[in-house]
Amino acid sequence: MNQKIRIGINGYGNLGRGVEYALKQNKDMELAAIFTRRDPKSLQTLDSSAKVVHISEVEQYKDKIDVMILCGGSATDLPEQGPEFAKLFNTIDSYDTHAKIPEYYEKMDDAAKSGNHISIISVGWDPGMFSMNRLLGEAILPEGETYTFWGKGLSQGHSDAVRRVRGVKAGVQYTIPIEEAVNRVRSGENPELSTREKHLRECYVVAEEGADKQKIEQDIKTMPNYFADYETTVHFISEEELKKNHSKMVHGGFVIRSGITGENTNQIVEYSLKLDSNPEFTSSILVTYARAAYKMSQEGQAGAKTVFDVPIGHLSPKTPEQLRKELL
Amino acid sequence: MNQKIRIGINGYGNLGRGVEYALKQNKDMELAAIFTRRDPKSLQTLDSSAKVVHISEVEQYKDKIDVMILCGGSATDLPEQGPEFAKLFNTIDSYDTHAKIPEYYEKMDDAAKSGNHISIISVGWDPGMFSMNRLLGEAILPEGETYTFWGKGLSQGHSDAVRRVRGVKAGVQYTIPIEEAVNRVRSGENPELSTREKHLRECYVVAEEGADKQKIEQDIKTMPNYFADYETTVHFISEEELKKNHSKMVHGGFVIRSGITGENTNQIVEYSLKLDSNPEFTSSILVTYARAAYKMSQEGQAGAKTVFDVPIGHLSPKTPEQLRKELL
Repeated sequence: MNQKIRIGINGYGNLGRGVEYALKQNKDMELAAIFTRRDPKSLQTLDSSAKVVHISEVEQYKDKIDVMILCGGSATDLPEQGPEFAKLFNTIDSYDTHAKIPEYYEKMDDAAKSGNHISIISVGWDPGMFSMNRLLGEAILPEGETYTFWGKGLSQGHSDAVRRVRGVKAGVQYTIPIEEAVNRVRSGENPELSTREKHLRECYVVAEEGADKQKIEQDIKTMPNYFADYETTVHFISEEELKKNHSKMVHGGFVIRSGITGENTNQIVEYSLKLDSNPEFTSSILVTYARAAYKMSQEGQAGAKTVFDVPIGHLSPKTPEQLRKELL
Repeated sequence: MNQKIRIGINGYGNLGRGVEYALKQNKDMELAAIFTRRDPKSLQTLDSSAKVVHISEVEQYKDKIDVMILCGGSATDLPEQGPEFAKLFNTIDSYDTHAKIPEYYEKMDDAAKSGNHISIISVGWDPGMFSMNRLLGEAILPEGETYTFWGKGLSQGHSDAVRRVRGVKAGVQYTIPIEEAVNRVRSGENPELSTREKHLRECYVVAEEGADKQKIEQDIKTMPNYFADYETTVHFISEEELKKNHSKMVHGGFVIRSGITGENTNQIVEYSLKLDSNPEFTSSILVTYARAAYKMSQEGQAGAKTVFDVPIGHLSPKTPEQLRKELL
């Protein structure tokens, strides 16, 4: 029997925990170690027997880990850790600052090549699965329009913005696709739509005792960049209700390509996600691509890759023969 | 400026014509020649200046065509022509006899390798895009169920069966997903469903003058394999109505993966198609994969491939840098 693919997790927040969960579902992989900047003893892992190591000792694991999954954030963790780790390991990350991907790619490519490793960057659902569907859509239907809608989903950045408003004790914000816009796109109408014409914003807010709710609502609705340009609704709820009904990190969305072939024949392709846990789904994708990174490295490839460079057969534990027989 | 990719079309039915349409939308490719078993002069091509050549002369085009798109049928054309052409050209085909794909793959692999060509087989939407989504679904969400629904779509095989019934002058059959089944799947319920529990069959029939309509309806509804196990409805219409409302080859369907992550968290992924022309959409996919075959051949690869083996970046006319910047 083949040896299992040995996976390392770097960073143990929602994503790292999601990776630990996902590894349990994939029998051809095993968790080798979790690396953290915190005191390893302080970490509450799902499996209490999981090996937890301080990040300062990571170099000692160079030959004990086949693929390291980087679970840090895109703002500060990945730009710093990514290239360091790519010298030591095959890596997977979910770098999602769209505008800076080309720059990040170059750095990761240099580092991965110098270490003779594979680093698949920007893996997840957007960037990731959504990107693949945007590419497929415009390649197959060159004459057409691509629409990306997000939600219904909890937006971390907008929830943070709500919580910064004076008088707000706690709160969350959902991004919601506007149904009328979705229906126009699905009908093949190919409308021109800005992000704000496609989405509305719904806030659930717990006010501090004695706070002026009208003022809170107005402060949220007029906040530039975040809410002022959108149709925004604000609901005041109790702390219990917030915990009970709004603690799941739901998300989703869809990519629609609406194009024409022949003599104005309408063709519509849609890829959609309905996720009860955004981080757990992203983690499951990261683990799947770890398998591909391992295979590509075994083939002798090196350098930074994206979801566009990976033959999707590499994502499956099945052999090419099985895939042709069972799934084609 | 780079030379355009020179495409050959073999076989000029609905698919071949769709390829001719699709090539007009792809500026990096050009139609080199159309090959036919018929008298070349008898072919009505879209572009009257298109070069039409009798299939017996195809060997003379060995160095004049970069990728040959095989537009024949899976029953008899492709098993015979596929391996012959793969020795001479890079090829793309839409071989769709699912059960015989492994056998066809082996033959195409031998032929393509002997000619040092790339042959991408079973390209289209099912097999093809649907297969990719089945693979992605089970790779990302190993604990779950995959559902493929077809329709609403015109089924060629079932329409033929209807037309063979005594007293039927003309007719078509639509395969239609059962909405209740779709909704159960979309809700994350993961029901067990056979093909017949997922689809119903709707027939539009023109009866011959004086024919016994009741008998026709009964003959259709009780036809083994095709209709007996399904909920089937039969509508009698006029010949004019058939021509007016039922001459488009609409099709579509969806692949849904419903799985769980973490502690029973529901995650649902859906890929869906709504096609006003089934053959034109398939042809557009064939053309897209011709570009990938060309690139893979330029890289020095050879042998039979499927959609599982092709990095999707190869499908786009854009450079890897552009793709990372614009689509990731």
